[in-house]
Amino acid sequence: MLNRVRSAVAHLVSSGGAPPPRPKSPDLPNATSAPPAAAPEAPRSPPARAGSGSGAPAKAVEAGASFSRPTFLQLSPGGLRRADDHAGRAVQSPPDTGRRLPWSTGYAEVINAGKSRHNEDQACCEVVYVEGRRSVTGVPRDPSRGQGLCFYYWGLFDGHAGGGAAEMASRLLHRHIREQLKDLVEILQDPSTPPLCLPSTPGVPVSSDLSHLVGPQSCWSSQKEVTHESLVVGAIENAFQLMDEQMARERRGHQVEGGCCALVVVYLLGKVYVANAGDSRAIIVRNGEIIPMSREFTPETERQRLQLLGFLKPELLGGEFTHLEFPRRVQPKELGQRMLYRDQNMTGWAYKKIELEDLRFPLVCGEGKKARVMATIGVTRGLGDHNLKVCSSNLSIKPFLSCFPEVRVYDLTQYEHCPDDVLVLGTDGLWDVTSDGEVAATVDRVLSAYEPNDPSRYTALAQALVLGARGTPRDRGWRLPNNKLGSGDDISVFVIPLGGPGSYS
Amino acid sequence: MLNRVRSAVAHLVSSGGAPPPRPKSPDLPNATSAPPAAAPEAPRSPPARAGSGSGAPAKAVEAGASFSRPTFLQLSPGGLRRADDHAGRAVQSPPDTGRRLPWSTGYAEVINAGKSRHNEDQACCEVVYVEGRRSVTGVPRDPSRGQGLCFYYWGLFDGHAGGGAAEMASRLLHRHIREQLKDLVEILQDPSTPPLCLPSTPGVPVSSDLSHLVGPQSCWSSQKEVTHESLVVGAIENAFQLMDEQMARERRGHQVEGGCCALVVVYLLGKVYVANAGDSRAIIVRNGEIIPMSREFTPETERQRLQLLGFLKPELLGGEFTHLEFPRRVQPKELGQRMLYRDQNMTGWAYKKIELEDLRFPLVCGEGKKARVMATIGVTRGLGDHNLKVCSSNLSIKPFLSCFPEVRVYDLTQYEHCPDDVLVLGTDGLWDVTSDGEVAATVDRVLSAYEPNDPSRYTALAQALVLGARGTPRDRGWRLPNNKLGSGDDISVFVIPLGGPGSYS
Repeated sequence: MLNRVRSAVAHLVSSGGAPPPRPKSPDLPNATSAPPAAAPEAPRSPPARAGSGSGAPAKAVEAGASFSRPTFLQLSPGGLRRADDHAGRAVQSPPDTGRRLPWSTGYAEVINAGKSRHNEDQACCEVVYVEGRRSVTGVPRDPSRGQGLCFYYWGLFDGHAGGGAAEMASRLLHRHIREQLKDLVEILQDPSTPPLCLPSTPGVPVSSDLSHLVGPQSCWSSQKEVTHESLVVGAIENAFQLMDEQMARERRGHQVEGGCCALVVVYLLGKVYVANAGDSRAIIVRNGEIIPMSREFTPETERQRLQLLGFLKPELLGGEFTHLEFPRRVQPKELGQRMLYRDQNMTGWAYKKIELEDLRFPLVCGEGKKARVMATIGVTRGLGDHNLKVCSSNLSIKPFLSCFPEVRVYDLTQYEHCPDDVLVLGTDGLWDVTSDGEVAATVDRVLSAYEPNDPSRYTALAQALVLGARGTPRDRGWRLPNNKLGSGDDISVFVIPLGGPGSYS
Repeated sequence: MLNRVRSAVAHLVSSGGAPPPRPKSPDLPNATSAPPAAAPEAPRSPPARAGSGSGAPAKAVEAGASFSRPTFLQLSPGGLRRADDHAGRAVQSPPDTGRRLPWSTGYAEVINAGKSRHNEDQACCEVVYVEGRRSVTGVPRDPSRGQGLCFYYWGLFDGHAGGGAAEMASRLLHRHIREQLKDLVEILQDPSTPPLCLPSTPGVPVSSDLSHLVGPQSCWSSQKEVTHESLVVGAIENAFQLMDEQMARERRGHQVEGGCCALVVVYLLGKVYVANAGDSRAIIVRNGEIIPMSREFTPETERQRLQLLGFLKPELLGGEFTHLEFPRRVQPKELGQRMLYRDQNMTGWAYKKIELEDLRFPLVCGEGKKARVMATIGVTRGLGDHNLKVCSSNLSIKPFLSCFPEVRVYDLTQYEHCPDDVLVLGTDGLWDVTSDGEVAATVDRVLSAYEPNDPSRYTALAQALVLGARGTPRDRGWRLPNNKLGSGDDISVFVIPLGGPGSYS
């Protein structure tokens, strides 16, 4: 996330110290074995006490171990140093030896060209077992059904103003998703329509007859049909919110610095759920065709949402900002003249007479990668950022940021996938310099050079995508073959094969 | 608009009397001649005085002339009675004799099957001349450029809870658009980028050099480029708002009853602007291909906007409604149980424990044509409805309704259109029983039966579409050939040819 947060670090409560060393994900040794043997950390842990948190940063600074990379990279201390080298920018991938990522997923990453001390991207790839709660519906359990569900999980987290939020999300977001799914294990395995109403306490059967839970039959005529799919979407949405709330609690212990975009893929019961909050992106390349699987959330794409909030809650603007947008900053000498503007209701522009309060800084300003909310942040959805303030001000930016993802669903069973069909996830470091068409061309070029059953082909593809976005050092910069500048940002890419060897079947 | 407003009429301030007879549009005699000779009514007229307004309704009741149809139908008193006959439901079109509508536009309408006394749809089709204000930019005028601009205009207005709003919008909305465009005449005729800033008073040149208006050159580097197209979009958006404000002012004189959806097409300088607020719809059928040109705004499509407003401004819910959505009404005996819900951030569903305030009626409820805001209204954008209250309550619904249209732009110059390419506008009476594909099939069937240069073919097509949605009386109802029920709603259709005889060229 290059240049997406200005002047933010100086205003972070936690800016005084590096974050503590994080335990590596305890899930990883069991990455492909389900269910895991050990009871994992509860995602809704109580707020961290200031006392327990305040001791940790000192250790972190002492150990100098604040830099962590995904455990599946299996980096040695020497490898970790190479991954942290801004000059060499060596591309990192999981080793050829040892256990592969699920589905033979390909992964590659590279550190930025110097914009932040460490790589602020993080990644996670897991197979997660969800043990159902005892009979949530109150109906005696069908013993022929399995006791739990597995989901496959991939996450990219692009941090800004520090690596703490991305690191935390990469460790914990999938556990929040698992917690949300626990109530649904029984329901998702039952082909009938989900019950509208459940007894108050999971595991306490109130009756084997559900009819009293849903009222008289006459009410059913006007009820909405809720699909299994929409329950999974709701579970993912709420997991994002709970993750964000956990960061808010734990920041009080000064442990969570900055914020992060989150792009997450969940595969469950034949369907791929792509959840995005931020400006990372996902596309499917299928038989050469490009299917966008996410949308970016930036001050430009969410302008009207932000302006509406500023209009309805002017106290959030603190008398410093105006919710109106102007094509550039209004100058005092232009008072009384008429300038182009648009408000929360408009997509077009019109002229308005400039009044005194129009001289305030616009809530949303700038274009493209330079677009900003409150002159500070360039993404409008993600996790964390609870401490983010406007520069030289006590005005909080968090109320304008949404932690909720947009979730798109792709039904894997509706299409016969071949080994060259892939879902590509990338942080903005990839997409800033690479078009969808260029990604599709690289997919074709790299995969056709490997046998279809060679599981290393997806890692080779991820590496090619990262290298293609990074470029090579030339003329005092990282440059692409066309001599344009490559991405100086952190770049992380997952390539998830949708068919063929290592597939979900 | 069938069944879209429940219990609303009883709560309208103006329900006591029929609206006064409206003067027929003074523009019509000049429909295709531009500029008009007479100075037309100013759209931003001062608020109607209660005194002048209160006398009118009595006359209206006395004359029994509250029923008006579009002037271009040229209906005789007998024709007006036939158009008002719920039993016969005769399809109305402009007469073959006399002046045709611009572009040989086809039009047809039919009254409802009895749901309201009169046809609450209204329509307007005009050629509007916009005279520019004197030198808005301050730069001396280029005498080689024309003094004004013409736009072509089509509007469908689907009224509910009375015909007043639709009738008023059909008379005045294009004038509001004209007023908004007056400042832009000079700018739209100049191929260079629109100026960011104008002198305070139109027509008062402050300098022949614009540079001082836009600040030092250094500011330009970060300014947004604003297109001519986006100025027209902004003009249309603001015209809708000013129309709505005018209705709010004049309702105080008890003259504007109910509200209306508005679907408007403006053709200006090579581009077609389709502006929609409500549940009417527009599609282009081009060489058999269907291009949607609008989106419907209903409690279902705007659920999250409505919920967000209820969440941020709970006072608008008056303690009677909850912003949460449930699949059906929650019952008191379900307190403490867990029920499916979704809030303003969610597209999926999840379970929550039912608390006391969840027993309030949901802000948004129902599905499809039965979806409602506050159990009252089934559309969420449009004009009017300033008096609309929740049944048996003083709670106002207007804050949840938006008067802003979504504007889509279609560049006519980007494609070589043939005489069979058309833009079809219809009120929901058409679309409730007719799919896009059926419309396209009717376009093909009817137009191929006429010579390409026969200007009556578009009226024949509009009639065929209205007849196809109305059906024929059979088995105690209006039925389609497949024996399903036809639309019992008012049905109005414009067919606008995009090429061939009568085109814009």
